Amino acid sequence: MDLSPATAAAATGTVLEGRVRAVIETVRPEVDGGRFPVKRVVGERVTVEADAFADGHDTLACVLRYRHEADADWSEAAMRPIGNDRWRGAFEAQKPGRYRYTVSAWVDHFLSWRHDFARREESEDIAVAARAGAALIREAAGRAEAADAARLRGWAGDLEGAADTQARRRVALDEELAALAGRWPDRRFAATYGRELAVVVDPERARFSTWYEMFPRSAGSRPGRHGTFRDCEKRLDYIASMGFDVLYFTPIHPIGRSRRKGRNNALDPAHDDVGSPWAIGSEAGGHKAILPELGTLEDFRRLVARARARGIEIALDLAFQCAPDHPYVSEHPEWFRQRPDGTVQYAENPPKRYQDIYPFDFESEAWPALWEELKSVIEYWIAQGVRIFRVDNPHTKSFAFWEWAIADIKSRHPEVLLLSEAFTRPKVMHRLAKLGFSQSYTYFAWRNTKRELTEYFTELCGGEDREYLRPNVWPNTPDILTEYLQHGGRPAFCARLLLAATLAASYGIYGPAFELLERAPREPGSEEYLDSEKYQIREWDIDRPESLREFIARVNAIRRDNPALQRDWSLAFLGVDNDLLIAYRKATDDLSNVVITVVNLDPYHRQAGWLEFDAAAFGLDTRASYQMHDLVSGARYLWHGSRNFVELAPGMGHVFRLRRRVRTERDFDYFM
Amino acid sequence: MDLSPATAAAATGTVLEGRVRAVIETVRPEVDGGRFPVKRVVGERVTVEADAFADGHDTLACVLRYRHEADADWSEAAMRPIGNDRWRGAFEAQKPGRYRYTVSAWVDHFLSWRHDFARREESEDIAVAARAGAALIREAAGRAEAADAARLRGWAGDLEGAADTQARRRVALDEELAALAGRWPDRRFAATYGRELAVVVDPERARFSTWYEMFPRSAGSRPGRHGTFRDCEKRLDYIASMGFDVLYFTPIHPIGRSRRKGRNNALDPAHDDVGSPWAIGSEAGGHKAILPELGTLEDFRRLVARARARGIEIALDLAFQCAPDHPYVSEHPEWFRQRPDGTVQYAENPPKRYQDIYPFDFESEAWPALWEELKSVIEYWIAQGVRIFRVDNPHTKSFAFWEWAIADIKSRHPEVLLLSEAFTRPKVMHRLAKLGFSQSYTYFAWRNTKRELTEYFTELCGGEDREYLRPNVWPNTPDILTEYLQHGGRPAFCARLLLAATLAASYGIYGPAFELLERAPREPGSEEYLDSEKYQIREWDIDRPESLREFIARVNAIRRDNPALQRDWSLAFLGVDNDLLIAYRKATDDLSNVVITVVNLDPYHRQAGWLEFDAAAFGLDTRASYQMHDLVSGARYLWHGSRNFVELAPGMGHVFRLRRRVRTERDFDYFM
Repeated sequence: MDLSPATAAAATGTVLEGRVRAVIETVRPEVDGGRFPVKRVVGERVTVEADAFADGHDTLACVLRYRHEADADWSEAAMRPIGNDRWRGAFEAQKPGRYRYTVSAWVDHFLSWRHDFARREESEDIAVAARAGAALIREAAGRAEAADAARLRGWAGDLEGAADTQARRRVALDEELAALAGRWPDRRFAATYGRELAVVVDPERARFSTWYEMFPRSAGSRPGRHGTFRDCEKRLDYIASMGFDVLYFTPIHPIGRSRRKGRNNALDPAHDDVGSPWAIGSEAGGHKAILPELGTLEDFRRLVARARARGIEIALDLAFQCAPDHPYVSEHPEWFRQRPDGTVQYAENPPKRYQDIYPFDFESEAWPALWEELKSVIEYWIAQGVRIFRVDNPHTKSFAFWEWAIADIKSRHPEVLLLSEAFTRPKVMHRLAKLGFSQSYTYFAWRNTKRELTEYFTELCGGEDREYLRPNVWPNTPDILTEYLQHGGRPAFCARLLLAATLAASYGIYGPAFELLERAPREPGSEEYLDSEKYQIREWDIDRPESLREFIARVNAIRRDNPALQRDWSLAFLGVDNDLLIAYRKATDDLSNVVITVVNLDPYHRQAGWLEFDAAAFGLDTRASYQMHDLVSGARYLWHGSRNFVELAPGMGHVFRLRRRVRTERDFDYFM
Repeated sequence: MDLSPATAAAATGTVLEGRVRAVIETVRPEVDGGRFPVKRVVGERVTVEADAFADGHDTLACVLRYRHEADADWSEAAMRPIGNDRWRGAFEAQKPGRYRYTVSAWVDHFLSWRHDFARREESEDIAVAARAGAALIREAAGRAEAADAARLRGWAGDLEGAADTQARRRVALDEELAALAGRWPDRRFAATYGRELAVVVDPERARFSTWYEMFPRSAGSRPGRHGTFRDCEKRLDYIASMGFDVLYFTPIHPIGRSRRKGRNNALDPAHDDVGSPWAIGSEAGGHKAILPELGTLEDFRRLVARARARGIEIALDLAFQCAPDHPYVSEHPEWFRQRPDGTVQYAENPPKRYQDIYPFDFESEAWPALWEELKSVIEYWIAQGVRIFRVDNPHTKSFAFWEWAIADIKSRHPEVLLLSEAFTRPKVMHRLAKLGFSQSYTYFAWRNTKRELTEYFTELCGGEDREYLRPNVWPNTPDILTEYLQHGGRPAFCARLLLAATLAASYGIYGPAFELLERAPREPGSEEYLDSEKYQIREWDIDRPESLREFIARVNAIRRDNPALQRDWSLAFLGVDNDLLIAYRKATDDLSNVVITVVNLDPYHRQAGWLEFDAAAFGLDTRASYQMHDLVSGARYLWHGSRNFVELAPGMGHVFRLRRRVRTERDFDYFM
């Protein structure tokens, strides 16, 4: 869409400049007509395409304009035509924050003249055209800096002085002249796309992250003792050894006493029940306080620092809701809805009632103070060293609040990341991603069959929505123990971990429940854990021999070593003639790293099949064999052509790295 | 995209009203983010969809707002949820001109309360909820007009006074109360979509029109005599008898003398050669003058009136370019580019030169005067009674000019239609349609095979572009004598006419060349006619027995009688197991008129095949037979089920109208 002065004004009846002949349409990427930014991480290229054309047959020039919001000046990158009036250009997102970009195009008279000149045949016609060209070159000289101006005037003289058709052609079509004149185009009547689009540039972890969720209170080393931040420190090496780089704590704040839930969500808690960490707030404080049993603020800051020293960021849970005894309830009753009986409105979804939780009223007249206070909670924890937040049920707080709060915080802290936990309707989930969340929980947990996984990840990784929604996939959470895990045993845990870790550049597990294969539901047909940590302290024997710890460490090491697995957009599914085997590949843009994953979705039986891989498209000599190096088992297979046999034990997978043949001698093959 | 005060401001850091919780996205139809209007004709419904939702689980209300630009007040139509947070509503475009539309949505507390109330179970909970509901109803009374206010207060009293759970339920869920409260919602915090979208409403002929193009100078009744408007008058009955409703004249203006082209585009004309009508302008005048040989302005106005009396509109050709002796050239040299040798720049596309044509320079400094003058040409002919224009090569004039001129003219003359003749690149063709042309020439002439036709018309009739681009398809024009027509003889002409007339609601032919099967090219491999009327007067014997006149009349009568053929959007192709048979259906929305066309694309051989038609989807009893009435031959066939046999002579076609069985008695079938 072109909203140059001329055409924008045309729609309203007054035209400011009618000589703007180029138009610009369909700029991509663009989210909802430019209403929302797209997302990239530092170091990525932002490739922009646009339709640009003018009336008639003149030649266009087209540039991509961009600037970091902190910079006053625009930079430009040339855009090249790629056919059908479409143009493409790119710039590199060098630093975090927000960049702006737009497109500008103009009818270039020098280029048009040059294009036509090459096609002229009659010598008289060529002589006249040479005079026209000399005039254009002198005009360029008039726009140029001194040195270039002098050189351009020299070219104009050469063109005028050329003795014959051959000489005129030689001068007119000289590449150096074209480059020089191209530096000083006449852009008086350039069209500029009517919108400045935005790209939010995050740290690389926004795209590639490996999460481990835990209840810090269960980190204790002795049965029955409430875990502390000091205990969590001792757990860091274990978590680092598995290759996680985000350690997400369930809420660490004081837990409400009033209407506290007991074990297994009982309405009648025992006096020593610890309650749900999401029932935030008590006499001991609210969202800026720490549950005393966990330790002090100093302990927390030390933990953050020690985690960071191991390459791990501590992520906090932002659960913007209150237990009935949260200080906000008495200090700011205006932030809550009242029931006709004078009590505070608790959360409900009739006939279900959650009387231990008071939601904020986002239609409160005092919304400005409420918004500021909630934002200050985030600011507070940033000041304590936290850079990553997992946001609990963001879809039950107003969209406008999130957009405002995230934009404000990221304008000062562009390194901050927020993960949206919106297990809700797709449009709502997407809106939250658009308005600023860095990553989003997905429906992965409930996508189990080959068809479900293929459709869902094709949509996530291949559709236009990937411009703003970065999936983060979880095989389990404290609320989600899937049927597949409940019944499939260890093979099911392996398959889901492999899928999560190789389908998505960001994934997470809730541990130690996951690696210790915890899979008893509270009752048949429920996705809730039996004896859930949400309501009680659990002791975990992380050294149990059946732990998936080593397997997880191996898989995460593979992710770290293979850049193809650190991004989502290259994902493509491969054919296998067995619906219980799923196969897909990811690759870096330069194809230097190509990874093919095959997973046996059947947790009960071995499965085998023939896998289709278009080896020729990856530059392989289809007459020779190539090596597939299974990074899980270490085994190396020789494949040939586009159809190869695979066979896998229940729940197991190959993560093949393609090794190219670099040289063949008589008896030896070398692979790089 | 929602640009309510809250969220729009959020993006910039200042929030005006944070209590707006609903958001609105992805409103359709919408062209290029609202930059361009969509198109409808008078009497059509404008169906609008939008995503609308809010945080949490509250119930939304959503309305479509619309107004004709001539009206000050907005009207509203309810939108209904159609699943996945999408809403749909519609309004009728009752008069020509421009309508505006947008969408508004809000969290409706009464509806939310009612929704929850129906799900509450505990009597204490219900009692408290009843009090909350009574308060909401009193609030509605506060917004209501007197009579409704009193009734609402009555309901509130009833609800408060209800003696038990059953009574509370009965009152709370009463439909009449819901309707009454729904009339007075609290819209203080309503979100409104950030853009007002536009729809241009044209007369019906914009959607359904049947064009006949002719050179008026060839309408003469005696060989060698220049035809006149009086001769054209005599031709009106002939044209009306074939069922055409737009008679489009090639340019009627004085023709340049200087560099005039001779017969068959010769550079050395004979002294009595008449020249190309598109070389406009001479001593006798320019674009507002009439070639004296054709008659007077009075003759022209009389012709327009007499045509209209027969249901035919005269369409003029707007060819904005000048012959060298056009008065503009001497009076306004500033509107043309000069060559370095001081001559005026003629049209060229090197190495081709068109020295008889001077294009206007849309980068002229005097562009405002040029734009005004060109627009005044259109105004001039409107003043003479012309309502339809065919625009020659609009893509060689600036887009901004067209957008400005068309918007201005249609604001005063909404009945005016303009057909864009842009045989050029797709993006350019589409831009012209977006910026205001009522209809567009297409690539139909070069789409011949079943696959080409299927792909092209699926795109034209099924894609989002149909919101602004109305195709007008032509089997031939004075510039286009296709290979298929050259070689296929009479069957090829029949097939192409049938395809044009039944695939597209608007089509046209260039006659009498078409109905008289004119098909000799100037040279092999050329699409130019031999002895083209562009350069000479032709005498046509319209009474030749081989004329397609009767066939055309039959086909156009079928179009007139079958509303399904008068619109494009319902087009769907049907399977036939023979690639030389193409079949498709069109239907009215209510399925009262269903037309299936089958055409034999082979001009040389009979072809037969089995046609697939999902009879059940059209409400037919698949166990009974149904009648297919071929409106071309008059024959009636009994079909059964979804697979039926068809067989056609070369180039021939069926245009079946589906006749439903209305009643069966022992021995008789009746079809309506």
